[in-house]
Amino acid sequence: KKTADPVSDKWDVPISTTAKNCRNYIREIVDNLNLEPNPNKKVIALSIGDPTVYGNLVPAKETTDALIETVLNGKHNGYGGSCGLDCSRNAVAEYLSYDGVEVQAEDVILCSGCSSSLDLCITVLADGTRGQNILVPKPGFPIYRTLAESMGVEVRHYDLLPEENWELDLDDVESKIDSKTAAIVINNPSNPCGSVYSEEHLRNVLRLAERNKIPIIADEIYERLVFPGNKFVSVASLGAKVPLLICGGLAKRFLVPGWRLGWIVVHDPVGAFAAVRKGLVCLSQRIIGSNTLVQGAMTKILLETPQSFHDELMNTLIETANIAYEEIGKIRGLKPFMPQGAMYMMVQIKSECFPQFNDGLEFVSKLMEEESTFCLPGEAFGLGGYMRIIITVPKELMVEACERLANFCNKYYKPKPCQLLPPVSIE
Amino acid sequence: KKTADPVSDKWDVPISTTAKNCRNYIREIVDNLNLEPNPNKKVIALSIGDPTVYGNLVPAKETTDALIETVLNGKHNGYGGSCGLDCSRNAVAEYLSYDGVEVQAEDVILCSGCSSSLDLCITVLADGTRGQNILVPKPGFPIYRTLAESMGVEVRHYDLLPEENWELDLDDVESKIDSKTAAIVINNPSNPCGSVYSEEHLRNVLRLAERNKIPIIADEIYERLVFPGNKFVSVASLGAKVPLLICGGLAKRFLVPGWRLGWIVVHDPVGAFAAVRKGLVCLSQRIIGSNTLVQGAMTKILLETPQSFHDELMNTLIETANIAYEEIGKIRGLKPFMPQGAMYMMVQIKSECFPQFNDGLEFVSKLMEEESTFCLPGEAFGLGGYMRIIITVPKELMVEACERLANFCNKYYKPKPCQLLPPVSIE
Ligand SMILES: Cc1ncc(COP(=O)(O)O)c(C=O)c1O
Ligand SMILES: Cc1ncc(COP(=O)(O)O)c(C=O)c1O
Repeated sequence: KKTADPVSDKWDVPISTTAKNCRNYIREIVDNLNLEPNPNKKVIALSIGDPTVYGNLVPAKETTDALIETVLNGKHNGYGGSCGLDCSRNAVAEYLSYDGVEVQAEDVILCSGCSSSLDLCITVLADGTRGQNILVPKPGFPIYRTLAESMGVEVRHYDLLPEENWELDLDDVESKIDSKTAAIVINNPSNPCGSVYSEEHLRNVLRLAERNKIPIIADEIYERLVFPGNKFVSVASLGAKVPLLICGGLAKRFLVPGWRLGWIVVHDPVGAFAAVRKGLVCLSQRIIGSNTLVQGAMTKILLETPQSFHDELMNTLIETANIAYEEIGKIRGLKPFMPQGAMYMMVQIKSECFPQFNDGLEFVSKLMEEESTFCLPGEAFGLGGYMRIIITVPKELMVEACERLANFCNKYYKPKPCQLLPPVSIE
Repeated sequence: KKTADPVSDKWDVPISTTAKNCRNYIREIVDNLNLEPNPNKKVIALSIGDPTVYGNLVPAKETTDALIETVLNGKHNGYGGSCGLDCSRNAVAEYLSYDGVEVQAEDVILCSGCSSSLDLCITVLADGTRGQNILVPKPGFPIYRTLAESMGVEVRHYDLLPEENWELDLDDVESKIDSKTAAIVINNPSNPCGSVYSEEHLRNVLRLAERNKIPIIADEIYERLVFPGNKFVSVASLGAKVPLLICGGLAKRFLVPGWRLGWIVVHDPVGAFAAVRKGLVCLSQRIIGSNTLVQGAMTKILLETPQSFHDELMNTLIETANIAYEEIGKIRGLKPFMPQGAMYMMVQIKSECFPQFNDGLEFVSKLMEEESTFCLPGEAFGLGGYMRIIITVPKELMVEACERLANFCNKYYKPKPCQLLPPVSIE
């Protein structure tokens, strides 16, 4: 019956368009690289976006204690409701109510990681069957694209401006909006840029959104992960008349990415999100919510982790960032961009200085082959000519990695040929 | 720019078709009931599918100990990979390798609960944009429909046969297959029926699938949750030449539904699932895997929970089921169906005996109003004239609930009017 032909003996099981269009852009790029490390050098992976992987960064004792307490009290083994337990949603509301923002528990939807939050936000707003599109940053975290494209939603990349603190190129954003634009995704602090936007820039972004009546999905997973002297400003704090979906979670600031606890906060200052709210609740029922042990621990995690834990983390990150910035700054042919937050640093590869390599992909492959040091090529984030390094490695490793980078670049650096002046004949 | 009109002052934020089509059928039915309990009686909810909610059923000490150990060793805070940690996939493979089934770790994909497993399976196989459909049981767990319809996939219900242990009506199944049928979902042991299928019946189902070349999604979340004297047979154990996606998880047998740990096992005896395997991996990346603390504990949970824990659970469940079956069996107008496993019992409401009520919905509402006892109407599972009761309540509560049911039915029961014979005149 499967086909019009007589019953076939062959199985033919095609996969859905959704599955076919669900691509992992980092994987696709990395898997196509020739990544054989130098057998004589231990690999240093400056590529891994998991801050816990080197063991130097560990969650606060309050965090793990709270989890253990939750297991022991035995009250959080059952279903938590698809949007999360009231107490946990309350904890998020309280945690995010600062700088004049007032979040209510009913504005919070808990998800299975921030990725899941982004999934719900993109899915609720953007409709592939209506030919809609969303705008995402370039360079940017590729999951926005993975999520959108698998749902048949077109992705349009807007430029970030490297020389202006990776701010949004607002003209470019505006030029990419049309009647089918369902949302603008912004990411602050940024992966991969490490940039932290000023209040002024965010106001400009919000004005653009308001003018064009496009809701914003704000990926604030690195919320308050900013270096001393910088200030994190949530788009929610600026009182703009723009409906916002703010995504966040425990992964980064609390150093527990594997615990898969994310959230969406619905901000609806213009009363435009009634259907969206309902839609998010419905979508959350597809997987019946997130882990209840983590939820049970959230009040303590979010509200009782001492400020000193956060301060120490940021101090560690900036020390490592400073080392990288200083050392890479000395390397001819590379240009580091000092981050103000998050966990990453962008480094420009001045391609004209490395004529041996056709592109950044060849550069990072050869770097791995010779120096056993791996940096994610900017291509993984949609922007060639750069690489992203993580600043969550132990300091000694960063020092070592910078030495290797220097070695490598010194070996391949070719100064631009001097412009030879035509001989001047002296009479 | 959002509309062709001059820049509008109004926000108009429609939601996607996916969100609009994502419906919670249990909610929709329950929310439309008038459910005011009798203020003089404590509510007994025989409706809640969470076995932990009454506190009488708790996870094994091995389970909670393993979780605590995982938190303490501090090795499972980072990302686990979107398909899960190798050790955890291995544990599932070993746990499910019995009755001749041999599962390899690479056949296992961990998900955020069995719901998430079902989501991935339906999404990878069925393509709404190609007008495909899936077949699901009636009565059945409504999440299949929620998941499929939100992806634009048509759902066709096949009948289960109440009088034949709720087996699939194979003729009905076959009549609903056409060239657009992407998968048949079966659920054994069954929610809401509590039925456990014989090997013979499953072989017939597999033969049907093979003849029609339709892959099976087998929801085996109640795997091995069968009463003494019954045997759980996995479709994977029958050596059929049918590609299978088996869904399961920790939720039920280990009494930790809130921990959100599900799995998919890919069985591909005919080599038809290469693309499906890849597609599942890609889809798993949308939310970057499930909670790593639970994953870290899985080896112990799955492989070291003593058989006595499982036996005790089943003994408790059958005792409660026996009480319900016996007591409800005595109530005029009701007909209980004895389950062989899972956590539920179906009860037929003989509508002709309760002419006061137009349907089962009115029956359960009135039962709540007068007796503060709530049973899920069969309508929530697609089948009117029945109600589903859970057998996971403490025994005393079941006794009390049965008394209330008896009260209620005695009050409203109307024997069918006797067929009065015409008077026979005696000459
Ligand atoms: C910008 C950004 N958003 C979202 C995420 C995903 O967060 P989660 O691990 O909570 O899914 C990441 C993870 O690296 C990220 O960098
Ligand atoms: C038949 C069936 N499948 C799947 C599920 C969902 O399981 P999980 O809680 O692991 O998502 C349930 C939960 O009640 C169920 O009854």
